[in-house]
Amino acid sequence: MVSSTANPTSASSQTIASIGENESLRRTIARLNKGDFELVGPGDDAAVIRAESGSFVVTTDTLVEGHDFRLDWSTWFDLGWKAVASNISDVAAMGAKPTVLVVALVCPATTLVTDLESFADGLREACLSLAPGCAVVGGDLASGAQTVISVTAHGDLGGRTAVLRSGAKAGDILAVGGTLGQAACGLDLLASGNRDAASAWDEWVSVQRRPQPPIALGIAAAETGATSMLDLSDGLAKDASRIAKASGVTLRISSSALFGFEARLEGAAQLLSLANPHLVEMGQPNLAAEEYCRKWVLTGGEDHSLLATFPAGTALPRGFKAIGEVLPAQPNAPLLLDANTFTAGGWDSVTG
Amino acid sequence: MVSSTANPTSASSQTIASIGENESLRRTIARLNKGDFELVGPGDDAAVIRAESGSFVVTTDTLVEGHDFRLDWSTWFDLGWKAVASNISDVAAMGAKPTVLVVALVCPATTLVTDLESFADGLREACLSLAPGCAVVGGDLASGAQTVISVTAHGDLGGRTAVLRSGAKAGDILAVGGTLGQAACGLDLLASGNRDAASAWDEWVSVQRRPQPPIALGIAAAETGATSMLDLSDGLAKDASRIAKASGVTLRISSSALFGFEARLEGAAQLLSLANPHLVEMGQPNLAAEEYCRKWVLTGGEDHSLLATFPAGTALPRGFKAIGEVLPAQPNAPLLLDANTFTAGGWDSVTG
Repeated sequence: MVSSTANPTSASSQTIASIGENESLRRTIARLNKGDFELVGPGDDAAVIRAESGSFVVTTDTLVEGHDFRLDWSTWFDLGWKAVASNISDVAAMGAKPTVLVVALVCPATTLVTDLESFADGLREACLSLAPGCAVVGGDLASGAQTVISVTAHGDLGGRTAVLRSGAKAGDILAVGGTLGQAACGLDLLASGNRDAASAWDEWVSVQRRPQPPIALGIAAAETGATSMLDLSDGLAKDASRIAKASGVTLRISSSALFGFEARLEGAAQLLSLANPHLVEMGQPNLAAEEYCRKWVLTGGEDHSLLATFPAGTALPRGFKAIGEVLPAQPNAPLLLDANTFTAGGWDSVTG
Repeated sequence: MVSSTANPTSASSQTIASIGENESLRRTIARLNKGDFELVGPGDDAAVIRAESGSFVVTTDTLVEGHDFRLDWSTWFDLGWKAVASNISDVAAMGAKPTVLVVALVCPATTLVTDLESFADGLREACLSLAPGCAVVGGDLASGAQTVISVTAHGDLGGRTAVLRSGAKAGDILAVGGTLGQAACGLDLLASGNRDAASAWDEWVSVQRRPQPPIALGIAAAETGATSMLDLSDGLAKDASRIAKASGVTLRISSSALFGFEARLEGAAQLLSLANPHLVEMGQPNLAAEEYCRKWVLTGGEDHSLLATFPAGTALPRGFKAIGEVLPAQPNAPLLLDANTFTAGGWDSVTG
């Protein structure tokens, strides 16, 4: 409680520095949901989590201001949402059910407490919406020059074997669970500076800001016998190459199977291809509409959909679409688009 | 492999930007130890970890450049060590055995690969030395303006009940497992700019750089019936107040019980009390030797020792020393030093 009359800070202008770490954490924690898996929750040296199947899945990922997000394009609620979404999709990609997360936030000491609270709201709503039962059970708050969000997500395999990247076999079906290219389209809409276009296609901007990874499809794929799986976080081409490399196979994507994903993005692509001085300024070539669509679908990653392989003849789980097949390894060609070798583009966290 | 003759980068001048995220991670992971708990290790979307007792303990903590460490005072090996030590001590403070860690590192793109490798060496050696069987099983690397290290540590209770902060009862013994004030002394030695003093007392500088938390004492305390416990990361006074608050009691520390901890630091304190222009410049008062010792022991946290309470009459585990007792809650006095109310000083991650 701020009661000093000498310093009558209104609630909306309080910063994390003005109320300190403990009070900031208390207010944040108060906004979180209580999940199904905590035995001891926030407030002690550590949380204690149920893992009745005798193992747990763990993954960590970081969002860095300026690299992974911009505070003028995303709200703090969006950041909380995205931090959860991008991490639990890695859990889902193992065939596991997300259970708990811990979140470490570094941000400037001048950050408003109301922003921190919005961030917590985003964390909570993403858990409730994308993976009911899952919750944030711990965290850390520190001040720094640049906002950095590190999330560690956990999951439970429920006795199933984890689906790795390395199990694809020649003859398998290659399939995508979820959408492709929408978040990348949303990013180009934001980067274009074309507000009318961004507003006309705000559903793709919204996927960029608040991704909707198909979490339940991870378990469905595992139960259907998926031989390999990963989270499409760096783009179809780059992530498909990872499965190919880990499994010692070549993946062939059929371009005709991508038409459906591309078609949905055509309207936005047409607007952007008309005139995009901002994108050209940023060093991006002026693309034709169909080139935009192909780029987004092949190299855009942040939809956080799933890429998986299934034995030939498998009836794919609803939500998965076949986009190609697994071939024996071809020399120097982990990835083919139809008959052509495809060089993977995509995102590198260090070099961008 | 850097093979371009047009750009003959020598191995020692390679940066993480010049070799990219994947190769940087590959080289880092190659230097880690393989622990006793991984079912699936680094390289997939997530790791899979054994948790045979049906639950796991999880905690997260962040080290921020300029706030928690300075690269001119610590090597990258030291940072790796400290990141492990400061996190597994939180696991130990629950009465659990550390099992696995995940590490998210943000650092400038210009960071040398050899520095990243030293960091990995520090992670490995701290695991092997402080908590054999424990290992880093996953991580993330991204570039950013400021170096930020986020670690999430996990542990196993082996069927024991977690020791919380909230279980202290009037009549209990208050005890410390491990050392007090040594890391804070080391920090003042570094900050003093007095190289002769720092070199004469390099054992305290070394505790600051590479803390030696008494990990096994956490399990020992739990098995001996500790009623409450926490990791002394923010200083005895501040952390003792946390137990008092969480347990609804008052803790009385006996100053005479601290003499032994203080006596060990007297030599360094005498050197610093002679002349410390740097510390005065930084706004620290010129203290007498005994004031230094008292300050370090009461408010210095980074030894990462354990503070615990035990039922009266308990034979304390070897390594614990009784320093006071638990009283019924006194109004507005969670912490007494002898008969006097003590106001907690100590570290706040946001306000410093």
